[in-house]
Amino acid sequence: MSNISFTQDSRKLYEGKAKALYEIDKEQILMVFKDSATAFNAKKSSNIQGKGELCCEISCELFKYLETKGIKTHFLKKHSENSMVVLKTTRLDIEVVLRNFAEGSIVNRLKVERGKEFKKPLLEFYLKNDELGDPIICESHIIALEIANSQTLNKIKTIARRVNSELFELFKKINLRLVDIKLEFGIKDGEILLIDELSPDNMRLRDKDDKSFDKDNFRFDLGDIKQAYKEVLSRLRALSK
Amino acid sequence: MSNISFTQDSRKLYEGKAKALYEIDKEQILMVFKDSATAFNAKKSSNIQGKGELCCEISCELFKYLETKGIKTHFLKKHSENSMVVLKTTRLDIEVVLRNFAEGSIVNRLKVERGKEFKKPLLEFYLKNDELGDPIICESHIIALEIANSQTLNKIKTIARRVNSELFELFKKINLRLVDIKLEFGIKDGEILLIDELSPDNMRLRDKDDKSFDKDNFRFDLGDIKQAYKEVLSRLRALSK
Repeated sequence: MSNISFTQDSRKLYEGKAKALYEIDKEQILMVFKDSATAFNAKKSSNIQGKGELCCEISCELFKYLETKGIKTHFLKKHSENSMVVLKTTRLDIEVVLRNFAEGSIVNRLKVERGKEFKKPLLEFYLKNDELGDPIICESHIIALEIANSQTLNKIKTIARRVNSELFELFKKINLRLVDIKLEFGIKDGEILLIDELSPDNMRLRDKDDKSFDKDNFRFDLGDIKQAYKEVLSRLRALSK
Repeated sequence: MSNISFTQDSRKLYEGKAKALYEIDKEQILMVFKDSATAFNAKKSSNIQGKGELCCEISCELFKYLETKGIKTHFLKKHSENSMVVLKTTRLDIEVVLRNFAEGSIVNRLKVERGKEFKKPLLEFYLKNDELGDPIICESHIIALEIANSQTLNKIKTIARRVNSELFELFKKINLRLVDIKLEFGIKDGEILLIDELSPDNMRLRDKDDKSFDKDNFRFDLGDIKQAYKEVLSRLRALSK
């Protein structure tokens, strides 16, 4: 299926809860999606055969879509059903969360009414650090901890808002509401690229009846996660045809 | 000592852990400093006779100093040893914390080395909400929760940084290091005013040997809190003579 010479000798750069990264060459990385589902900082975890493929396929669709909208990402091409080739970047150790509606952690932490629509999407920063439990941080921490300077930070905010609004409109077309999304960024040759994956593992998608098409199916045993992800992929593909 | 007619009939607007507020008239409030010390969201508390007076006297000195530097505050005048007259404002339900050096909550929460000096003072926001435990928030929450609009928020950041740098320089003159400080703001006739108190109850002050002249004396039983506050007041007074 692919012409990349990928052997067991390839250098594994990282293996996390959901993905493993292998170095292809100085410029490129193979991102392999695992068949795992984890939630609550890995306190709940499970193996779900075929989930890796679905997250990979959806990510490829969404990265390709964003590229057509002029958003720079690390995506290069799909490699196999469960892997894609991405550019090697210097990852910024922050997670950027955009919230269009109130769901999840914010509901309890700040007593915001579940389902409340934010007039302007809410933008939160978290420090990417499993040991510390990915704590929420202020913009000032990003500067003080020298993760990014203020110019880079402002660019990231602008890109993150654009990604959110482009995907919000895209999902609207397939009758899904983008409730919130977690984004990660990397730097390559001084340029900010959207990295990581783009799947229902790191965004909440709901239909008009508030049915979940995202990882909440696994988190809260709401339904068949694979069936939900398959439906998202199938709607996205129908749209791009 | 004062010509304010202040009787038991005066309307009590608020009583908190450290202060009580009484309405004088439509424009003015009497802020009475209580002889209490509380820490860890009131999990530790104690009555320390005379502490209210010290916090009041230090607050008066610092508000008067900031006014000479052109910073607008709610302070009008001292009323008695443990009370001052302030302008009535609409309080913004946020706490703004400026950190010049790493101490306290940030050390454990973000694994920042204790004592680390920040190149640019770190600026954090907390939601002022006892029930929720004053959670840390991002700038976007302040907008989304409609506590302030983005213009007001930017002004607050500028004022907060100025207050911190003015007080940092002032304390340097009396051989104390302003480690961090918590500020609160209110709105009066569209103008942002620095409100609340300005005492070692809401800032950390250290000498060259890292000896504490602040509430950490009470929090961690480091020493005589009244003696420490008296020393701060006496050094401030010596300076203003």
